Amino acid sequence: MAESLNGMKRTKLCGEFRLSDVGKTVTATGFVAKYRNLGSIQFVDLRDRSGILQLSFSEADHPEVFAKSTAIRNEFVLAVRGTIAPRGEKNVNPNLPTGEIELIVEELRILSEADTTPFHIVDDCKANEQLRLKYRYLDLRRPYLQHRLIVRDQIVRTTAEYMAKQGFLNIETPFLGKSTPEGARDYLVPSRVKQGAFYALPQSPQLYKQLLMIAGFDRYYQIAKCFRDEDLRANRQPEFTQIDIEMSYVEDIADVMKVAEGLIREIFKKTIGLDLPKRFRRLKYSEAMERFGSDKPDTRFGLELQDVSKIVKGCGFSVFDNAARKKGFSVRGINAKGMAKFTRKEVDALQDVVKEYGAKGLAYISLKPDGISSPIAKFFSEERFRALIDAMGGETGDLLLFVADRDKTVFDALGALRLAVARKEGLIDESTYDILWVTHFPLYEYDEEEKRLVAMHHPFTSPLTEDLKYLKDKPLKVRAKAYDLVINGQEAGGGSIRIHSAELQETMFDRIGLTEKDIKERFGFFVEAFRYGVPPHGGLAFGLDRLVMLLTGTDNIKDVIAFPKNQAAACLMSDAPGEVEDKQLIELGLPVPQK
Amino acid sequence: MAESLNGMKRTKLCGEFRLSDVGKTVTATGFVAKYRNLGSIQFVDLRDRSGILQLSFSEADHPEVFAKSTAIRNEFVLAVRGTIAPRGEKNVNPNLPTGEIELIVEELRILSEADTTPFHIVDDCKANEQLRLKYRYLDLRRPYLQHRLIVRDQIVRTTAEYMAKQGFLNIETPFLGKSTPEGARDYLVPSRVKQGAFYALPQSPQLYKQLLMIAGFDRYYQIAKCFRDEDLRANRQPEFTQIDIEMSYVEDIADVMKVAEGLIREIFKKTIGLDLPKRFRRLKYSEAMERFGSDKPDTRFGLELQDVSKIVKGCGFSVFDNAARKKGFSVRGINAKGMAKFTRKEVDALQDVVKEYGAKGLAYISLKPDGISSPIAKFFSEERFRALIDAMGGETGDLLLFVADRDKTVFDALGALRLAVARKEGLIDESTYDILWVTHFPLYEYDEEEKRLVAMHHPFTSPLTEDLKYLKDKPLKVRAKAYDLVINGQEAGGGSIRIHSAELQETMFDRIGLTEKDIKERFGFFVEAFRYGVPPHGGLAFGLDRLVMLLTGTDNIKDVIAFPKNQAAACLMSDAPGEVEDKQLIELGLPVPQK
Repeated sequence: MAESLNGMKRTKLCGEFRLSDVGKTVTATGFVAKYRNLGSIQFVDLRDRSGILQLSFSEADHPEVFAKSTAIRNEFVLAVRGTIAPRGEKNVNPNLPTGEIELIVEELRILSEADTTPFHIVDDCKANEQLRLKYRYLDLRRPYLQHRLIVRDQIVRTTAEYMAKQGFLNIETPFLGKSTPEGARDYLVPSRVKQGAFYALPQSPQLYKQLLMIAGFDRYYQIAKCFRDEDLRANRQPEFTQIDIEMSYVEDIADVMKVAEGLIREIFKKTIGLDLPKRFRRLKYSEAMERFGSDKPDTRFGLELQDVSKIVKGCGFSVFDNAARKKGFSVRGINAKGMAKFTRKEVDALQDVVKEYGAKGLAYISLKPDGISSPIAKFFSEERFRALIDAMGGETGDLLLFVADRDKTVFDALGALRLAVARKEGLIDESTYDILWVTHFPLYEYDEEEKRLVAMHHPFTSPLTEDLKYLKDKPLKVRAKAYDLVINGQEAGGGSIRIHSAELQETMFDRIGLTEKDIKERFGFFVEAFRYGVPPHGGLAFGLDRLVMLLTGTDNIKDVIAFPKNQAAACLMSDAPGEVEDKQLIELGLPVPQK
Repeated sequence: MAESLNGMKRTKLCGEFRLSDVGKTVTATGFVAKYRNLGSIQFVDLRDRSGILQLSFSEADHPEVFAKSTAIRNEFVLAVRGTIAPRGEKNVNPNLPTGEIELIVEELRILSEADTTPFHIVDDCKANEQLRLKYRYLDLRRPYLQHRLIVRDQIVRTTAEYMAKQGFLNIETPFLGKSTPEGARDYLVPSRVKQGAFYALPQSPQLYKQLLMIAGFDRYYQIAKCFRDEDLRANRQPEFTQIDIEMSYVEDIADVMKVAEGLIREIFKKTIGLDLPKRFRRLKYSEAMERFGSDKPDTRFGLELQDVSKIVKGCGFSVFDNAARKKGFSVRGINAKGMAKFTRKEVDALQDVVKEYGAKGLAYISLKPDGISSPIAKFFSEERFRALIDAMGGETGDLLLFVADRDKTVFDALGALRLAVARKEGLIDESTYDILWVTHFPLYEYDEEEKRLVAMHHPFTSPLTEDLKYLKDKPLKVRAKAYDLVINGQEAGGGSIRIHSAELQETMFDRIGLTEKDIKERFGFFVEAFRYGVPPHGGLAFGLDRLVMLLTGTDNIKDVIAFPKNQAAACLMSDAPGEVEDKQLIELGLPVPQK
């Protein structure tokens, strides 16, 4: 049976004891991470969120306490009192902050016993993820996960401090809102009071934060939980968290970017001690696509795209020639420097990468030291083939890779190919952070499936002032006052200056094919709000989960969330979602399943 | 058409300008709160969340700007540049922090025009609440509401700072959880991936926060949104916010109360500058009930309850006599000092109060200066009647009020009566804060409807160590390690030391009538967690909405929430809950209504 603390209060956390504590009588509490019984002496590693403290039980000095200590097993919860002593020289552990000392235990209380855990609680735990998710509370004891949630707390704290200093108010927006199905799928909540009606959980607080600006709150932020009922890819969770920001009296994208840069600088400084530049690099969307084939480019390595359409136009290779001639199509390539060494099998694997992004194939020219290997060479005149190689800066040892297709496909395929080659060859310096803004996004893109324009960001994004003239006739030419923050090739956040005129907002809705009825039903109250005075405003949102992942170096979003869902949006620990009682369904007017 | 800011950046917020700014060229932005055209001069009150700045447009000095300014109407959004000047002595407004100065406008930009608003945006707005909820973004412009959300932000900020200083980590717990229908009604979220299954929105993060202790996070807090699908009384909202706290290695209620006291002190200091005592008063539950008839007593006034059962036992008045004899029943009274002046009608109104709480009637003795008036006098011997008056400390001019019933009914009725009389007679000093803890709650109470014991707080509450001996045979005698913080007669928060032994937790579930199957289905994973080492832990939660209400002096919870719901749990602004598309229902496997 568990013992009680009986008034024992810990002196400090386990990981905080140091040589300077030697000789002091102290109290510590924690979980047993490890125990070693050496016959007349027993060592125990006591663990809490701060680290490990070595306890030493000596039969000679404290026979009764020693005897009691032999019952100790892993994950028991202890409170101990004793004296801090230096470790013998040969026992010093230089890898532990507390490695120079130990606690000679004079009083032991076993606060809680523990069965053998389903897996061993160490950082290099080999248990499969399903088991660890089922016993999440045990997995969370691992320093690896504790660290990530501690950094998450630091980021949230730093955000609150910084935003307050900048005059932003933390304001909560509702979770039970209205479904406005432009975007991802909503999670719905049936109403009991008004049967047949539903609330929707927010995909983002977008409308509310703009309404807060219309309400005169001037500067708002929130650590906002958002929801999307999507089929989960890796690194997606049905509920995720944004650092959500909105401010009034801004018109230029730089006004918002400046606040965002300050916040990100502060977060990097506080969590990993890294000083970022005062202003981050900026790249226009068109340049990001042309050079990196991506609107979230990783610029820590080269392998930039090159447009060779002009050179291949009129060549005998019809795939290239057609793409070079057609509007909205192109032929582009990457020079994989020194990678002519790739085997046929390795090149085939690259074919798979581009095909995943819709390209029909990958053409290549392998400039092997013993001669050029290229299935497309035969379609070219020698002169033009040379010109193509030269245009790509091709030298002996290089592998030139080409895709010819619709621009979007070319960019997507080569952008992905670029990353695949860099990862394969270890070209990415993972020790650095590559931070930049992508700006000047198109306001619209054409949705092939729905055969209509859609807003590339969202329909509240303001067009660039200088592009307003194209809004009527050449909407695809209109660029947006939008900006994405890209860190190491990942979208860390994004936002825009918003439309603040009712007229322009209605034009925007009209262009994306919303009828007046649609607008009224979905956004009626929002559009009406524009009639009563709207300060110019803008904002952005950072993905908090993503930020924590970037700052703690993990690719797994589950590592940064205390109680995550699996790919089927289920919690393996609590078994949610689950069955509910018939009574609950009846009260909601929902059908009760036959049993 | 709206003008652009064109690079204008405000110098500071409207309410921040002072005499020390006189002579400076400054820029200000805001909404037009008021305008007065005096012919050749126009005054405009420019409003932002910080206050009001008077703008002055002079035809003589800046004829073009003046001409433009005549178009200004209420709620237009402006940016202005000009010079700060002192107001003429007779125009000084001592009620405004900016009342000594004005801005002589040299450049005016009308950033947004505004139609006439559906109601006038002033603090003494007379529009009905429905209209104001529909145009919530306009209502929120009123300084009254802005102030309340600004204080809310201060409280959240202070909490984050204080909790971090005390070593608490901010950790987010899931919104999509499992329904555990012990308590209020859950909001359910249908699962698309697993049709027929549901998530539940959290009523509180109780299980998760305890699991975080089991996971070794040691100290946790969260500003947690919680959900209850209840029929809304005034001052209830379907979604509400808790300051949620949990800590490990605590056993004594004082360990948690100390942290809570520190937080509340800090919040009062930072928001209203009030110094609270280091330790708050404590009152045991039994004493709170006996003296005030309430477990959340307002002790800013007297009118305490007195038990007269012993005195009336055996009197001729059977209602009193029976109640005095029966176990669990009693006769108690309040001496409403000096209130013999109450008319018959006023006393009848008091009858209604006690009846609302289930009492069958209110007996009284009115010690009027011209003689005693009491319908119950005839049942008493003169001697016993005198003894009853004496026991109540009755003097000429007093009104003695009695209820005889089951104890619970007596307490509820007299507790409510006490408040009603105090409010009616203005006995409550609203300028002070009355803060105290109520402790030593019963662990269980008997639920008459369900004919079983239920946990008075929740089934994770630890019994008092000294009462463990009653757990088996006299469970109603067992008191809990629970504590509520009561401010001005309102429950501001509450919590407990938790059970941390699997054995005791199972006993607890058993006593409240959960079968092993129930336990396994609802709390299986939680009970299992107790097998792997559990630190003793405890915590509490404050109602954030309630705290803001108390600190800003409002009785209306809607005043402290940006976008509240009405009594039908609907948002009149966005019209949530609403209809959704058939496609959405089909994807969720929900029936599509016939149209």
